[in-house]
Amino acid sequence: MNASIESWAEQIRAGDIRAVSRALSAIENGDEDAQLLLRTVFPSTGRAWRIGITGAAGSGKSTLASCLAAYYRTQGKAIGIIAVDPTSPFTGGAILGDRIRMQSHFMDEDVFIRSMALRGSTGGLAQAAADAALLLDAAGKDIIILETVGVGQDEIEIVRIADCTLVVVVSGAGDEVQGLKAGLMEIADIFVLNKSDYEDAGRFEQQLLFVLQLAPPREGWNPKIVRTVATEEKGIAELAGEIDDFREAHVEAHHRHTREIAYWKHWLVRQAERRVAEQLVESSPSKLDELASSVASREKDPYSAAEEILRALDFAPRQKNSRPGGAV
Amino acid sequence: MNASIESWAEQIRAGDIRAVSRALSAIENGDEDAQLLLRTVFPSTGRAWRIGITGAAGSGKSTLASCLAAYYRTQGKAIGIIAVDPTSPFTGGAILGDRIRMQSHFMDEDVFIRSMALRGSTGGLAQAAADAALLLDAAGKDIIILETVGVGQDEIEIVRIADCTLVVVVSGAGDEVQGLKAGLMEIADIFVLNKSDYEDAGRFEQQLLFVLQLAPPREGWNPKIVRTVATEEKGIAELAGEIDDFREAHVEAHHRHTREIAYWKHWLVRQAERRVAEQLVESSPSKLDELASSVASREKDPYSAAEEILRALDFAPRQKNSRPGGAV
Repeated sequence: MNASIESWAEQIRAGDIRAVSRALSAIENGDEDAQLLLRTVFPSTGRAWRIGITGAAGSGKSTLASCLAAYYRTQGKAIGIIAVDPTSPFTGGAILGDRIRMQSHFMDEDVFIRSMALRGSTGGLAQAAADAALLLDAAGKDIIILETVGVGQDEIEIVRIADCTLVVVVSGAGDEVQGLKAGLMEIADIFVLNKSDYEDAGRFEQQLLFVLQLAPPREGWNPKIVRTVATEEKGIAELAGEIDDFREAHVEAHHRHTREIAYWKHWLVRQAERRVAEQLVESSPSKLDELASSVASREKDPYSAAEEILRALDFAPRQKNSRPGGAV
Repeated sequence: MNASIESWAEQIRAGDIRAVSRALSAIENGDEDAQLLLRTVFPSTGRAWRIGITGAAGSGKSTLASCLAAYYRTQGKAIGIIAVDPTSPFTGGAILGDRIRMQSHFMDEDVFIRSMALRGSTGGLAQAAADAALLLDAAGKDIIILETVGVGQDEIEIVRIADCTLVVVVSGAGDEVQGLKAGLMEIADIFVLNKSDYEDAGRFEQQLLFVLQLAPPREGWNPKIVRTVATEEKGIAELAGEIDDFREAHVEAHHRHTREIAYWKHWLVRQAERRVAEQLVESSPSKLDELASSVASREKDPYSAAEEILRALDFAPRQKNSRPGGAV
């Protein structure tokens, strides 16, 4: 093991803010050091409680994250906030502004805030956010809030690492219950009906309750709905209470460990996929280009081309119906 | 080649509606026959012009698709519409209702409408939509409209097959230009500012123009903005005119072929990734479970586990920095 990595890891385990910041930059930039560092600090992770917050733009996620952080600070917890912004880099200024305003609320160093913006592929951003959460975990944060703008597949990927996921919804145009994505219904442990002083918040809550009843039942926990007005700090204690209840039910039922295993299974599969994609794009560009051209000009059908590309990878595909386990 | 597949393919090439419907069901269900059929009809594809329509829920995409179809019918074109709905299966009723109303607008059989809802993984849905588009292409449709609800990564995947992509935006709460995703800015060939009789539509158009100026320049085409009021059939001829202009610029510059090649490269990489993921989940569940458990309990770091899983796959990873091309 590299001595400088070891001493860097030591500083991170001691919660040194500069060392943590430098590590997060290394993660964002995809530096090789970042992976070495994460390997080194990995055994010190697994202690933080991770809260994911997602929902549509303008639903008040940042304000909510800020309120929750303030609440947990009164309990003496060390907080890390990772705000991931997959929106356009050239319109992302407002988000960063939010973040700076948020940081200014906290005078102490026990709230660490980092925002990560889109850089390269979306999959890469989810990976960087997950790595950042591991790092803050190793740095001794008690609570890590992962906040992400939007409601797409990429955001679902980002909050996947959370122990408890809040989906923030507001009543109003374009954010009807109808429009809620299946994926969100499945990941929400708690729905936060924010800006609930709007006039039709009650109707919206009824709709949401109705939809939740139609959803397939979940083991050990029925998603709750909490009404908040984050800008006035209303409903925050109730929300924290629901999060605590969830945590108790969750830990008691050993769901956390089950969820961790499922998460790492998913992570390992994604990692293998990515390696294969890299291999295809980097080591055999001409083969890939050649096959894609043949398909585009209809000389070859895409399924035959896929078989060729797998052979070119030295990857021996077995028949889908063959007995599992034989070769492993 | 299976004789029944060959005769089924023949019916599809002849545009037989029942044969097409049956094939689309086979695609949706992931039947093995579907792949055989697609391989058989693949050489007859590549003639249709594919229009992708995406945008937030409630932006009026279905009405717009319906108006465009009606417009193209007056030119004697055969139309296929594939409406993909990645929203919750248990709240998806309204969408299906829309579809039935839409179908009723067309008395002739030359507008073929099919909606596909979420079933299994999102990636699977994008794949099914792409296959459905190929099939309608083989069945002789001149224009295929791929319409999808929402603005996430999954929808971007779905419209990726289109030759021309319309992004529908409306001014109003929660749909600010700020909230537009980077991915959408990149895929939009034409922005449709629908419901543009709203009072602040002008301000919104100015914002959008401003953001477009900041975007990196695109070769051969600057995304246009067209204002429509689809419910009143306003702006449809102008929109069709812009689509024609794009098509001309596109075909002239050979962009279509370049785009097709890029699409098939992406498709082949996805296919290889999927095969690897299947292999991992199906043929070595115990190895995957075992490694994920070791990571969850911090006995092993995830990067070492990833290396083990790749070895278990018989997939020989090469060094990232090794010379490319050697083994292929």
